[in-house]
Amino acid sequence: MVTYDVSQSAITSAVGQGLEVVKDYKEMLENIDCPRNIWMMIPAGKAVDDVIFNDLLPYLVEGDLLIDGGNSNYKDSIKRAQKLAARKIEFMDVGTSGGICGVHNGLSLMIGGSKDNFKRIEPALKDLAAEKGYHLMGGNGAGHFVKMVHNGIEYTLLQSYAEGFELLREGPFELDLRAIASVWNNGGIVRSWLLGLIQEILEKDKLDIIDAEVGGGQTGSWAVEAAMEAEVPFTMLAAALSNRFHSRRDSFAAKLVAALRMRFGGHTVKRKR
Amino acid sequence: MVTYDVSQSAITSAVGQGLEVVKDYKEMLENIDCPRNIWMMIPAGKAVDDVIFNDLLPYLVEGDLLIDGGNSNYKDSIKRAQKLAARKIEFMDVGTSGGICGVHNGLSLMIGGSKDNFKRIEPALKDLAAEKGYHLMGGNGAGHFVKMVHNGIEYTLLQSYAEGFELLREGPFELDLRAIASVWNNGGIVRSWLLGLIQEILEKDKLDIIDAEVGGGQTGSWAVEAAMEAEVPFTMLAAALSNRFHSRRDSFAAKLVAALRMRFGGHTVKRKR
Repeated sequence: MVTYDVSQSAITSAVGQGLEVVKDYKEMLENIDCPRNIWMMIPAGKAVDDVIFNDLLPYLVEGDLLIDGGNSNYKDSIKRAQKLAARKIEFMDVGTSGGICGVHNGLSLMIGGSKDNFKRIEPALKDLAAEKGYHLMGGNGAGHFVKMVHNGIEYTLLQSYAEGFELLREGPFELDLRAIASVWNNGGIVRSWLLGLIQEILEKDKLDIIDAEVGGGQTGSWAVEAAMEAEVPFTMLAAALSNRFHSRRDSFAAKLVAALRMRFGGHTVKRKR
Repeated sequence: MVTYDVSQSAITSAVGQGLEVVKDYKEMLENIDCPRNIWMMIPAGKAVDDVIFNDLLPYLVEGDLLIDGGNSNYKDSIKRAQKLAARKIEFMDVGTSGGICGVHNGLSLMIGGSKDNFKRIEPALKDLAAEKGYHLMGGNGAGHFVKMVHNGIEYTLLQSYAEGFELLREGPFELDLRAIASVWNNGGIVRSWLLGLIQEILEKDKLDIIDAEVGGGQTGSWAVEAAMEAEVPFTMLAAALSNRFHSRRDSFAAKLVAALRMRFGGHTVKRKR
């Protein structure tokens, strides 16, 4: 296996783990026997197109297989597969879940592409995935579509637990949130891997020093778009995503509401310091 | 241990499991040594007051302990504890999670009351709970308060997964929902006990024959009230609860929107058959 990354820190880490790292995409491709299987982990968007069509395509030959293991939009994956098919280059989209611990415990892999290509890379999937943790979801795009919905659910679960714990914290009792997470995780209906993380955070991290801002939002926004296209309700997703956007804004809407309440009712507003 | 229930089917089932069942509350109390520990599993509301203050209290003596293991409103539990304390009767509220499988796998128990009473019933708690599955949350009411928030989170998790699976079903791909639940449960961030149940339902149940109506709503409504009192956001809970109410209504609001769209825009409405 040969690896390459544009980030020097990623290269240093890969070398530290005994991986063979080459100096550019060209050298990487020269060091893999044809037909080649090339697994990409690249942030969604233009970077993926750049790598596929500018950095790799000039050196690819018929039968080579590109695997996008990142969080690409499933519509982009469908388009890329079609463009590559015209050049007789194979393509697979692999949605990857499990987080940084998943690398050690086994990932959950959602695969889109042909059955032949699925069989071709199945040994690698087996190595990477948890037991029973991979499945061919459908043709190209299906892997990233299922991953997008997975992420949408993830947004809603995070916000659901978070609102519950805020209520526990602000309610009428002095409660030990860590003990609650632990008791719920031992026999409770709401037990989950995420609740285990919450327990760990409550035991180890100081939330007071963290800004109350939540990043991300891309796959959740795509999931909202997909729900609108399918015309299915997405109340939870909309609420979770809105909360996330809200968390990082000096809310103009809140100011407007405060100002309106002052105008019509004489209610006080706070002046920013 | 002596047991009693007003339902004949519950009595039959208890007898079948080798339990000693008596003919009324009086006989039950006569067959327990004082000071007595009395564990109640009664639907929340008036029934709990009736049993405590009409059926049991006349026969109780100082030092007897009543345990409410049901889903009572925590404010009721505080009031009941105070009324009983005036009669020197002890009271504990025990929120119970785990569902029907929890009886075999060990429950998650959220306990409110005094430390002394907690120690007094700890052997029973240990027997009933999963390992590490019980904790004294605080004074009277704290157990049912934590259980109420637990249920609120439960509502939001149910609706979160459900909307995600509806999107998978109605999206642009023909997907095997069972395989997705399985792959997500093996290594995915969203893995949980509830997702395991979803997998089981998708494998075994025919959802087509089920009415799209969701029951319940009481503890979720109380959680909304508690969030309003604490002035913390409850967007997820509001959405989940609204969806539940929506599911069982021949929605007047939807009719009104449809009628308005017809009046101002000439859009068609469907006539009920």
